Amino acid sequence: MAYEQPVVDVPALTALLDGRYAEVRALVRTNLVRHAGILEEAERLDRDDYRDRVRDLVIEMAATGQTGMGFPTEYGGGGDIGASVAAFETLAFGDLSVLVKVGVQFGLFGGAILQLGTRRHHEAHLEDLVTGRLMGCFAMTESGHGSNVQALATVATYDAATEEFVIETPDDTARKDWIGNAARHAETAVVFAQLEVAGERHGVHAFVVPLRRDGAVVEGVRIEDCGQKMGLNGVDNGRIWFDRVRVPREALLNRFADVTMDGTYTSPIENQNRRFFTMLGTLVQGRVCVGGAGVNAAKVALTIATRYADRRRQFEATSEGREELLLDYGMHQRRLLPLIARTYALHFAQEVVAGRLHEVFSGLAEDERARRALESEAAGLKALATWHASGAIQECREACGGAGYRSENRFDALKADTDVFTTFEGDNHVLLQLVAKGLLTDYSSEFEEMDQFGLVRFVAGLAVETVVERTSAHKLLERLKDALPGGDEWDQEAGLLDPDYHLTMLRFREEHMLAGAARRLKRGVDQGMDLGEVFSRVQDHVIGAARAHVERLVLEAFVEKLAGLDDGDLKVALGLLSDLYALSTIEADRGWFMEHGRLSSARSKAISREVSDLCRKIRPLAVDLVDAFGVPEEMLRAPELLTWGD
Amino acid sequence: MAYEQPVVDVPALTALLDGRYAEVRALVRTNLVRHAGILEEAERLDRDDYRDRVRDLVIEMAATGQTGMGFPTEYGGGGDIGASVAAFETLAFGDLSVLVKVGVQFGLFGGAILQLGTRRHHEAHLEDLVTGRLMGCFAMTESGHGSNVQALATVATYDAATEEFVIETPDDTARKDWIGNAARHAETAVVFAQLEVAGERHGVHAFVVPLRRDGAVVEGVRIEDCGQKMGLNGVDNGRIWFDRVRVPREALLNRFADVTMDGTYTSPIENQNRRFFTMLGTLVQGRVCVGGAGVNAAKVALTIATRYADRRRQFEATSEGREELLLDYGMHQRRLLPLIARTYALHFAQEVVAGRLHEVFSGLAEDERARRALESEAAGLKALATWHASGAIQECREACGGAGYRSENRFDALKADTDVFTTFEGDNHVLLQLVAKGLLTDYSSEFEEMDQFGLVRFVAGLAVETVVERTSAHKLLERLKDALPGGDEWDQEAGLLDPDYHLTMLRFREEHMLAGAARRLKRGVDQGMDLGEVFSRVQDHVIGAARAHVERLVLEAFVEKLAGLDDGDLKVALGLLSDLYALSTIEADRGWFMEHGRLSSARSKAISREVSDLCRKIRPLAVDLVDAFGVPEEMLRAPELLTWGD
Repeated sequence: MAYEQPVVDVPALTALLDGRYAEVRALVRTNLVRHAGILEEAERLDRDDYRDRVRDLVIEMAATGQTGMGFPTEYGGGGDIGASVAAFETLAFGDLSVLVKVGVQFGLFGGAILQLGTRRHHEAHLEDLVTGRLMGCFAMTESGHGSNVQALATVATYDAATEEFVIETPDDTARKDWIGNAARHAETAVVFAQLEVAGERHGVHAFVVPLRRDGAVVEGVRIEDCGQKMGLNGVDNGRIWFDRVRVPREALLNRFADVTMDGTYTSPIENQNRRFFTMLGTLVQGRVCVGGAGVNAAKVALTIATRYADRRRQFEATSEGREELLLDYGMHQRRLLPLIARTYALHFAQEVVAGRLHEVFSGLAEDERARRALESEAAGLKALATWHASGAIQECREACGGAGYRSENRFDALKADTDVFTTFEGDNHVLLQLVAKGLLTDYSSEFEEMDQFGLVRFVAGLAVETVVERTSAHKLLERLKDALPGGDEWDQEAGLLDPDYHLTMLRFREEHMLAGAARRLKRGVDQGMDLGEVFSRVQDHVIGAARAHVERLVLEAFVEKLAGLDDGDLKVALGLLSDLYALSTIEADRGWFMEHGRLSSARSKAISREVSDLCRKIRPLAVDLVDAFGVPEEMLRAPELLTWGD
Repeated sequence: MAYEQPVVDVPALTALLDGRYAEVRALVRTNLVRHAGILEEAERLDRDDYRDRVRDLVIEMAATGQTGMGFPTEYGGGGDIGASVAAFETLAFGDLSVLVKVGVQFGLFGGAILQLGTRRHHEAHLEDLVTGRLMGCFAMTESGHGSNVQALATVATYDAATEEFVIETPDDTARKDWIGNAARHAETAVVFAQLEVAGERHGVHAFVVPLRRDGAVVEGVRIEDCGQKMGLNGVDNGRIWFDRVRVPREALLNRFADVTMDGTYTSPIENQNRRFFTMLGTLVQGRVCVGGAGVNAAKVALTIATRYADRRRQFEATSEGREELLLDYGMHQRRLLPLIARTYALHFAQEVVAGRLHEVFSGLAEDERARRALESEAAGLKALATWHASGAIQECREACGGAGYRSENRFDALKADTDVFTTFEGDNHVLLQLVAKGLLTDYSSEFEEMDQFGLVRFVAGLAVETVVERTSAHKLLERLKDALPGGDEWDQEAGLLDPDYHLTMLRFREEHMLAGAARRLKRGVDQGMDLGEVFSRVQDHVIGAARAHVERLVLEAFVEKLAGLDDGDLKVALGLLSDLYALSTIEADRGWFMEHGRLSSARSKAISREVSDLCRKIRPLAVDLVDAFGVPEEMLRAPELLTWGD
C-alpha cells in the first residue's frame, strides 16, 4: 500500500494529548493567559518585586482551585491527585518561577503536611495552605547534603521535661540550603532533622517549625537569602540556621513515627532505613511533576523553533532567486524533528507514570511493589525528561540564531529557569543509580535500605542469570522475540518500521546491559577488589543500564498509546513519530548494538537512512504537530520569530 | 616498562600553554585581576550602568596597550597580530561583556578600518580608535540576513552631483540588527551595503558612517536598543535604520574597490563574488578570536568543577563512615576528564590557527591558498570550540549540583554569555558547511564564489576519486597506514595508544565521509533530482565530513605539540590527555567506525575500557591539569565551591 501523507486534525490531537484532564488543563491555560504579563515583568521588575508578584499570582491561581487539586475536598482541595499533576505540568508553559513556587508551596510543603502528618496537622494547616494564606517551605537539603538525605546533620532532640523538641543546626554545613520560599515569604517550615530521644538517634524525621511571625523572623531562627541565581529569580530561596529552637511535641509529623510525652519513641515500621524511605516515598509526586514540567517546557521551545523554521528563509537552494525555508534543509529537519518525536514519547510516558501515581496515592493500588516501581519510574523519567528539556531548548535556541538570544524571544527564561531541573528533586545521575539499584535487586524488600556497598554485596551474592531472569525486560523479551519473523535472526529479518522490532531492540539492550553490569560487579568482588572501587568502576555501566530501561519504558508507553487508537490519519501521523523516536534512539546508540551483535553495518546504515526519510515525511506535518501541544500563543511571546516575514 | 605516575610541574605546564605570548597573557591577567569587581557588578548594576562600566573598563584596558596589539605601531598599536589574539583569548577568563565589547571595538570596527580602508582612513581614525576615544560599531548583519551576507539589502547609491554616497534602509528586514556598541556608545559605524553606481550594482561594500555627534544620534539615522538578552548585557546591541544618509565619497573603505569622482567604479578584483569574499576574508581574525575565547571560557568552568569534585564528598563508597570524593567516582571522571583532554587538544589547535593567522596577516605567508586554508580552519575550529564551550560549561554546572546554579558561583554568567558564541561570527552549521565546501572543491579558485547550487554542480562534475585524492587527508592517510604494523590490518594490529593509530583512524573517517558525501551529491544529480533537494538530503553528511576534518586537525595539533616536547613527566601527562582525547573521540563515533569496517566489536569495547583506564590514570593529576590553565583565582569566584570543607 502506498504511503499517503496524513492530515493532522490539530484540535483532535490536542485533545488526545490533554487526555482525561482536559478540563483542568483548560483552566490552567486560561489562568496563564490572564496573567501572561508575568513573562515580561520577570525581565523588568527588580528581584524583590518579582518575587512578590509571583507570590501574589500563586495566591490568585490558588483561588481558582488550580493549585489545590491534590488535597482532600474537606480542606478545600480537589481530591484528585492526577488532576493536580496535570495542572502542574500545564503551568510549565508559563513563567517557571510561578511553577516552582507552586511546587514548593503545594507540592513540597503541602505534600509533607498531608503525607507525613496526621489529622491534627491537617486540621491545623491544610485549609490555610491550600488558599495560600499560610505560606510554607520544605527544609530538607543542607549545604553538606543534597542527594544523600539520610546523612542530614540538623538535630531535633526531645526534651521530656518541657515536652518539646529542640531543633539545632550543629555547624554551617548543616544549614538548610536552597530552601524555596524561605528568604521572603514562608511563615512555616517543614524541617527534616535527625531525631534524638533520650540519647538515642532514630534517623531523619519531619517537624513543623514556625519561621516568621507577622513577617518578622522568630527568635532562634536565622535566614539568609541565597541571592541571585541563573534563573527562577521569582522564587526566594534561602538558607536557614536553627539555634536551639523549641517546638511542641505535636510538631512532629507523626504518621510514621511518634514520641510519647514521657519520651518513648514508637513507629509501626521497625527498620530505620525502611521507615526513612517510606517517608521519602510519599513525596514521589515532586519528581513526577518536575518530569512533566520538563516535557512541557520543551514543547514551548519546539513550538517557537519549528514555526520559525517554517517561515524563515536562508540562502538559495532549491530554486534560483528565492531563499529556502530553514525547515526544508535536511540538517534542520534532523535537528528539530527527532526532538519533537521524543517529546511526544516522553509525554505519553509521563501520562503513564502520572496515572500510576494517581492509582497508588488514591489507594487504588496498595501493594508495596507497585509503590516501589512507581518511585523508580518517576526517578528515571524525571532524569530523562529534564535532560531532554535542557537539550531541546538549547537546540531550539541555536536553530533560531541570534534572535533566539533576545530575552523577549523566550529562550532566555526557558533555558535559565529549566537548567536546575536536572539537579533538583534529585540529581539525575543519582536518580538513575536508584533506578539501576531497583533493577539489579528486583526491588527486593531490602533494596531501599541498601547503600552502594549493600548493592555491590547483594549483586555479588547472586548468580548473574538470577539478576537477569528476574527483570521484566527479560520476560517481555522472550515473548516478543517469538513474535518477530526470522527466529534467532529477528534482528536481521524484522521490518525496520515494526514496533515489535523497536521494542525488542530496546529490551535486548536493557537486559544485556543489566547482565553486564551485574557480571562486572560480581567479578570485581570475586577478585577481591574494594567494594567502593568496584562500584566506582562499574558506575557508568550501571547508569547506562538504567537509562536503557527508561528509554524502553518510554517507547512502550508510545507504542501502547498507538495501539489503542482508531485507524486514521492521527494514528498514521503518531506512528511516524513513534518510528522516529525508536529509530533515532537506536541510531544514537548504534555503536552499542553493533558491539553486541544486534546490528549489522548494513542495517545500521539503513536505520540512519530511515531516520532521514521519516524526517522528510514528518516535515509537512511539523507545524501542526507542535501546534497540537496547545501552548497558548501568549506563552510563546517571540513576536520577532513567530511573525517572521509578515 | 611499567607505567609511572607523572608529577605535573604546574608553572612549567602553564608556560607551555601560554607559549610565545606569555608576557601578553600576563598583562591581561593583571588587568583582569585589577578589575575583578566587574564580575560582581555585572549582577548588581542596572543595564545602562553595567554598559557604561564595561565601556570605561575597555578604555582603561586600552591604555595598557592590551587591546591594540594588532594595530600598526605608528597608530599606537603593538604591531603584532598573534599577540592581539593571545590577549583576546586570555580576556575570556573574565567578564565576557568586556571581551565582546573589545571584540567589537578593536576587532570588528578597528579591523574593518584597518583591513578594508586605506591610508586616509587609517590616518583619520586608527589612533583614536586604538585609545577608545572613538567608539565604533560594525554594521553588517541585517534582520533579514545574518549568515547570508551577500544578500544584504541596505543600499549605498553614489550621487556624482554631490560626490556623496546615499545610504538607505529599504525596509524593516534590512535594518541593521544586533550591532554591538550601537545602542549607546558608538559614534561611528562601518556600514555594509550594496553599492550602486550609475544604476549598476557592484555587491556589498563598507562605508564609514557617523552615527552620533556629541552623544546625539545624527539626522537620518534611527537607532533602537535590542533590549534584554540572555547574556552579554554589558554590550549595547542595537538596530539601525538609515534614511537617505549622505556620506562623502571618501567614506568608502576603498582598499579593494573605489568610485571615482565622476562615478566610475574600479576594482583590482574583477569578479564580484571573489571581491566580496576577499573583503570578508580579511576579517577572519574575529572567528579565530571567538574560537579561542570559547576554549578559555571552558577552562574557567572546568577549573571550578574539577577542584570542587576533589573536595566535595557524597555518599559512602570506599570506606564505611566516610563519604567519597566526587572525583573518585567513575562516572564523575567520565564526565569531566575527557572534557579536560578535549580542552587541551583545542588549545593546541587554536595555537596553530592563531599562528597561521599571524603569518598570513603579517605578510609572512602571502599565497592565496594559505589564506583560504586559514579561513576554513578558523571557521571549523570556531564551530568545534564554541560547541565544546557550551557543552563543557553545562556539564560542569550539573557536576556542581544546585550550588552551580547560584550566580556567584560563576556558571550563570559563563553559560549565558557564551551561549551566543555558537551562532555569532557565523552560525556553526553554516561554518562547517563552508569547511566542507573547501574540502569538496579542494579550495579551487572558484570555491569562494559557489553557492549551494554551485557546490552541487561542481562536485557532480568530478569523479569521486578526484575529490578524494585531492584532499590532504588522503595523502596523509596513505603515508601513515604504511607506518603502522599489520599492513592492511592496521586497524586491528596497531596499539590502542599509538598516536599514529589515532591519526589514521581520524584521517580514514574524514576521507571516507568526504568521499561518501561526494558520491551522494553526484548520484543525486545523475538521477535528475533538483539540485536543492540533493543538497538538502546530503547536508548532514556534508557537515559530518567537515566535523571529522576539524577533529583530525585538532588531534594533529596535539600530537605535533607532544612530538616537540622533551621526554619527562610533562610529556607523559600530556600524552595521557592526547590518548584520552583521541580515544574518546573515536569512542563517541564508534558506530561509524564499525559501520565502515574499521572497528571490530571487541576492539570497540577495548577502546571504551581504555578510556576508563585513562580517566583513572589522569584522576590524580586532574587538579594540577586545570590549575595549569592559569585562570586567576579572582576570575573563579565561586567561594562556596572552591573552599568546600575548609
